[in-house]
Amino acid sequence: MRIALIAALVLTSGSAYADEGQWQPYQMPSIADKLQQRGIDIPAKQLADLGQYPMNAIVGLGYCTASFVSPQGLVVTNHHCAYRAIQYNSKTEHNYLADGFLAKTKDAEPSAGPNERLYITESVTDVTKQVNANLRDEPLARYQDIERNRKALIKQCESDDNYRCSVSSFHNGLEFYLSKQLIIRDVRLVYAPPASVGSFGGDVDNYEYPRHAGDFTFLRAYVGKDGKPATYAEDNVPYQPKSHLKINANGVKAGDGVFVAGYPGSTSRYRLTSELKFASQWLYPVSAQYYQQKIDTIEQMSAADKSIAIKYAGTIASMANRMKKLNGLLDGFNATDIVGIKQGRENDFLAWLQQDKQANQQVITQLETLLAQQHQLTQTNYYFENAQSSTLLSAAKRLYRLAKEKQRPDAERESGYQLRDMKMFSARLKRIDSTFDASVDKVLWLQDLNAYQAQPLKVAALDNQLNHTEGQQDLREKVAGFYALTQLSDQATRLAWMDKTAEEFENSQDPFIRLAVALYDSNMAIEKQEKTLQGQLSQARPAYMNAVISYYKSKNWPVYPDANGTLRITYGMVDGYQSKDALYKQPFTRLEGITAKHTGIAPFDAPQKVLNAIAAGDYGKHRIQSVYHDPRSWMCKLISCAAKPNEFNSVPVNFLSSVDTTGGNSGSPVLNGQGELVGLNFDSTYEAITKDWFFNPTITRAIHVDIRYVLWMMDKVDHADNLIKELDLVND
Amino acid sequence: MRIALIAALVLTSGSAYADEGQWQPYQMPSIADKLQQRGIDIPAKQLADLGQYPMNAIVGLGYCTASFVSPQGLVVTNHHCAYRAIQYNSKTEHNYLADGFLAKTKDAEPSAGPNERLYITESVTDVTKQVNANLRDEPLARYQDIERNRKALIKQCESDDNYRCSVSSFHNGLEFYLSKQLIIRDVRLVYAPPASVGSFGGDVDNYEYPRHAGDFTFLRAYVGKDGKPATYAEDNVPYQPKSHLKINANGVKAGDGVFVAGYPGSTSRYRLTSELKFASQWLYPVSAQYYQQKIDTIEQMSAADKSIAIKYAGTIASMANRMKKLNGLLDGFNATDIVGIKQGRENDFLAWLQQDKQANQQVITQLETLLAQQHQLTQTNYYFENAQSSTLLSAAKRLYRLAKEKQRPDAERESGYQLRDMKMFSARLKRIDSTFDASVDKVLWLQDLNAYQAQPLKVAALDNQLNHTEGQQDLREKVAGFYALTQLSDQATRLAWMDKTAEEFENSQDPFIRLAVALYDSNMAIEKQEKTLQGQLSQARPAYMNAVISYYKSKNWPVYPDANGTLRITYGMVDGYQSKDALYKQPFTRLEGITAKHTGIAPFDAPQKVLNAIAAGDYGKHRIQSVYHDPRSWMCKLISCAAKPNEFNSVPVNFLSSVDTTGGNSGSPVLNGQGELVGLNFDSTYEAITKDWFFNPTITRAIHVDIRYVLWMMDKVDHADNLIKELDLVND
Repeated sequence: MRIALIAALVLTSGSAYADEGQWQPYQMPSIADKLQQRGIDIPAKQLADLGQYPMNAIVGLGYCTASFVSPQGLVVTNHHCAYRAIQYNSKTEHNYLADGFLAKTKDAEPSAGPNERLYITESVTDVTKQVNANLRDEPLARYQDIERNRKALIKQCESDDNYRCSVSSFHNGLEFYLSKQLIIRDVRLVYAPPASVGSFGGDVDNYEYPRHAGDFTFLRAYVGKDGKPATYAEDNVPYQPKSHLKINANGVKAGDGVFVAGYPGSTSRYRLTSELKFASQWLYPVSAQYYQQKIDTIEQMSAADKSIAIKYAGTIASMANRMKKLNGLLDGFNATDIVGIKQGRENDFLAWLQQDKQANQQVITQLETLLAQQHQLTQTNYYFENAQSSTLLSAAKRLYRLAKEKQRPDAERESGYQLRDMKMFSARLKRIDSTFDASVDKVLWLQDLNAYQAQPLKVAALDNQLNHTEGQQDLREKVAGFYALTQLSDQATRLAWMDKTAEEFENSQDPFIRLAVALYDSNMAIEKQEKTLQGQLSQARPAYMNAVISYYKSKNWPVYPDANGTLRITYGMVDGYQSKDALYKQPFTRLEGITAKHTGIAPFDAPQKVLNAIAAGDYGKHRIQSVYHDPRSWMCKLISCAAKPNEFNSVPVNFLSSVDTTGGNSGSPVLNGQGELVGLNFDSTYEAITKDWFFNPTITRAIHVDIRYVLWMMDKVDHADNLIKELDLVND
Repeated sequence: MRIALIAALVLTSGSAYADEGQWQPYQMPSIADKLQQRGIDIPAKQLADLGQYPMNAIVGLGYCTASFVSPQGLVVTNHHCAYRAIQYNSKTEHNYLADGFLAKTKDAEPSAGPNERLYITESVTDVTKQVNANLRDEPLARYQDIERNRKALIKQCESDDNYRCSVSSFHNGLEFYLSKQLIIRDVRLVYAPPASVGSFGGDVDNYEYPRHAGDFTFLRAYVGKDGKPATYAEDNVPYQPKSHLKINANGVKAGDGVFVAGYPGSTSRYRLTSELKFASQWLYPVSAQYYQQKIDTIEQMSAADKSIAIKYAGTIASMANRMKKLNGLLDGFNATDIVGIKQGRENDFLAWLQQDKQANQQVITQLETLLAQQHQLTQTNYYFENAQSSTLLSAAKRLYRLAKEKQRPDAERESGYQLRDMKMFSARLKRIDSTFDASVDKVLWLQDLNAYQAQPLKVAALDNQLNHTEGQQDLREKVAGFYALTQLSDQATRLAWMDKTAEEFENSQDPFIRLAVALYDSNMAIEKQEKTLQGQLSQARPAYMNAVISYYKSKNWPVYPDANGTLRITYGMVDGYQSKDALYKQPFTRLEGITAKHTGIAPFDAPQKVLNAIAAGDYGKHRIQSVYHDPRSWMCKLISCAAKPNEFNSVPVNFLSSVDTTGGNSGSPVLNGQGELVGLNFDSTYEAITKDWFFNPTITRAIHVDIRYVLWMMDKVDHADNLIKELDLVND
């Protein structure tokens, strides 16, 4: 079974696990031969060194990736990663989202907003020993000890205000690494195309290919005159990065090796089959139903009231994105029996364990028992947790928790409630103003309360509060009462609660504060259950991973940790893919594809200046005759190369490669074998959504903006000559 | 030489009219060099001879094409062409539509129904001179003279009951040919797959590719013991055709030349730009709106009443097909500026005309004036004609017309009302029972009457009748009155009217008969206008075509007549196509594609026996390792050949070629260069729908059932060993 499966993979892809892997930079020398096979000539050792080119040009945005592309701190990332910065600068009189923005001089570069940050990872250190030092055996205590050790490492590392540190778990707690990142606090907007270029195709094309998005934006890092990070000040100066990426104006061709550096957020490749089953058979379908109800409700209310539409635009967009991802996961599990594949692999692993007589069977049994408990806990608390979905109740809960946490020394407080978190804490309370409408929140909460009441698992504290409001038997009226009487919809009131004592909360008559106080013990009890389970899992999971890694090594399979938001490198090849029977998606899209998709109606409303430049054939030196190597080349024995000469004859817009990415890799530089920038990662294909669980090399493709499209836009459409001069262009 | 020539064709594609042409068989020697370039080695002279292989094995069904595939009169065509025959034999106890049918012996072959016919074209004769003999100048008289001459030729040709003859206009009246066809009247059902194979994908996949339809069915021709055509009799014997097609069990590969023989219905390639404009800007959008309203209404009423759903299933299916074709036409005109292209070509033609000083300008001016009149006439009568859409009114009109026509000698009667037409006439009256529901007909007619009343162009006769019904002011009530009082919904009553005199009609109190009588003069006046215009066009169009043909010849462009339901040959190449930017549709689909599309819900509900055989990999000798020639071959310099060995490894289900087909070509045999059967034509791609007006070789592809899928179904799924033995297999 196992052999047959892998054999099938080998036959269809050329080699199993072809380009799978979100590698830690230090691992690069261990896969040096594979990099070379792919034509990645830059030495693996160099890639492992965060102090060297190109890794010291990689920038994190917290939720996306970017890179330095000039000695003057110029940074390039996705348009969708810079969306907040562009929105922040858009006014009625100059709508940069609609029209795009270009600063012709540095003086004209506005602040990207007070909350924008750039992070440059300077070091990553193995701190497994320190995290695991002096752990007590009792599960809850063990959980707390790990947290204490992590916080201590972070505090020590963050001695300087200019650094952010974090301790991340690798291989489900088998290893821990401390990342130290320089923080750039003065970020400015330099050049953004109109949203009708940056997100051409919008939600409709999200996760789709063929794609034609110009998903790029340029920012600039600024620092104080002393060269040190500083908050925004008019006389700050451009930051001089240790290095910046060279840009290859010739781009890549099909079959070329590429690699991508960035901050992938989360994958579940080593999870057990039981976890995949729980996700695919319960969590995802239930979540999809939940999100669909919310989207339908908000869209209905938005249609009737434009101010609601504006406030909930972001919510709807992110929910729609989440829905498409959930549907992609469910469709993907339907199309490929990933549960079966993983079960087969797991069975082989278990057989191997028994053969080895390592008596590690108990590791599995123990872990499975804990996972069953965890799934049970999730299901049990699902409706109760949803029943607390009101935005104002959430705020009240966080505020009361803050008052309680403050009773302890800072170092012992729960993460998120420490002094270092207070700026984010208040920013989150402020943001409610622009994303909340009581009439919508009320309806959404009522739906969740109704769902809670319709099921048998009850929490007395909540039931008491719901029954408490006398004279109002109707739940709708009760909910309306909460919103009518609360003061928390006022920003100043919310912020003022940050400084109040727990006693003040307990004496408050604000209905949401009262509810938050009433639910506190129930929520803490659940949290305790979860932490206890985490404490148990913090022993069981590493033991399991230890065995799995031994098994993988015995098979000579690659071993890399699941994504966890830390800096990684992935490599692959520029290549199309077989999307369906008889339907082949070619690796590059063309400018003419924009015109063909253009309808004039958003999201297919390309700007006239772009359409005109295409119609005029004003492609200049950016025109490419072929995106394929000579059909007689060795490469064309492996991939589908078009045989007709001059078949492309356009500027490439987007392209595909087999690199292994996930959310957080948005904006990541795509680099050729010499480490020169050839594109920006921004999405992956619908068929590939299940890659978070299982990497299928035949259909998994990431979607990139081609650097030649970026350069064409700069040169022929937006005439960003000042920026082109600043870039370090190769083969121009 | 061959390589260079084809290279030239491919490189200049878009202008080269690559494989365009629905050729008359006699023209084949004139394109012998092109056939050879495509690898069609069977001599062109042989293809021109209707008495020789393979043309004497081609069979017409009236609305589809078929071919003989055994010496015992076995015929293969599309499942959708044999639909009526399968439906006719389906009963509650054996539903052959749902389950398929296979006769294991000839005794078990049931009649396909009393109305099924097979036609074998034995000769095609140029009768231009005879049709144009003794024509008067006055337009209406000219029209009548042409009709008289045609009827005389047909009557002379149909001396024997076993022949059907027809005189068809070629090049818009420039030439006329008389076709003489042998009629087989005893047709039997031999082997049909379930509809879930035959029309797998149904309406959803109609005009779509990748496609996975097993659109084939076997019939058999029977004749009397004397070998002469005869109506069904149990002791009739299988017909022995003059020849039957050999079947190449190896099928074709990408790049192979193929040709298709059959009866394409109608194209408009030589029409003027003004005609295309009228169709694309008025007729098609208006028709699309009209059909959509009807479809919506019928679907709504069908949802509420199952008996309506059954009666209107055929109507809905054909309307949905028509809608998809209309949408495809409108989308196609939107995607490609065909009006602009045709206008450009027309301008060149006009310039050429002037250069030639042939003073033919007047031919154009005159034709344009007549066309403008024709379009005006269509628009003027549009609502009045729709206002007569009631099924029972149509029947009443035809019946009254019959009574009027009968007042003249048979030879002078309008076509459709002659003695030779009476069997079809009564069959049509009978068929109303199974496709008509008064409640639906009423609503549809009311919609058309409302639309008529809402516009300014009035016909007094209709208005008088609508106002006539006293006391009922509401149109809905008036319409209801028609259906309440008529006797025409009774079949026997309808048929009885076939024998009544005009006077009896004029004295009838049946509301629909009364209305038919009342509208007669108005309708005849319109018909007279139309015939007069036809009489004028019968001079103007040939003059125009004469000039166009001279122009085409001066350019060395192919000249073939528009499709008109007569026997034609088209040739092309097996090839995929670029459907959209970066989206390439490969030429062959695979068995696994069926499983991938299968959802269990119609129309994607493949039978379990097919799914099982695929899952078991039970492909036997039908498995093909590659559908491409060696990537180093000359062919692969021209077309997209996959470079990976063994990349196909399945049984081909459907395939694409660049042959030039249209409606009526359904069921046509697809033949390889040696004239061996390799597939059955059954559809063409959505992008190609505009080919009726303009043949774009880069995107025009016909869709064929691969003979290897047919053989696999017969061998591995349905075990039709008796039939396989009967076939004349090559390379088996």
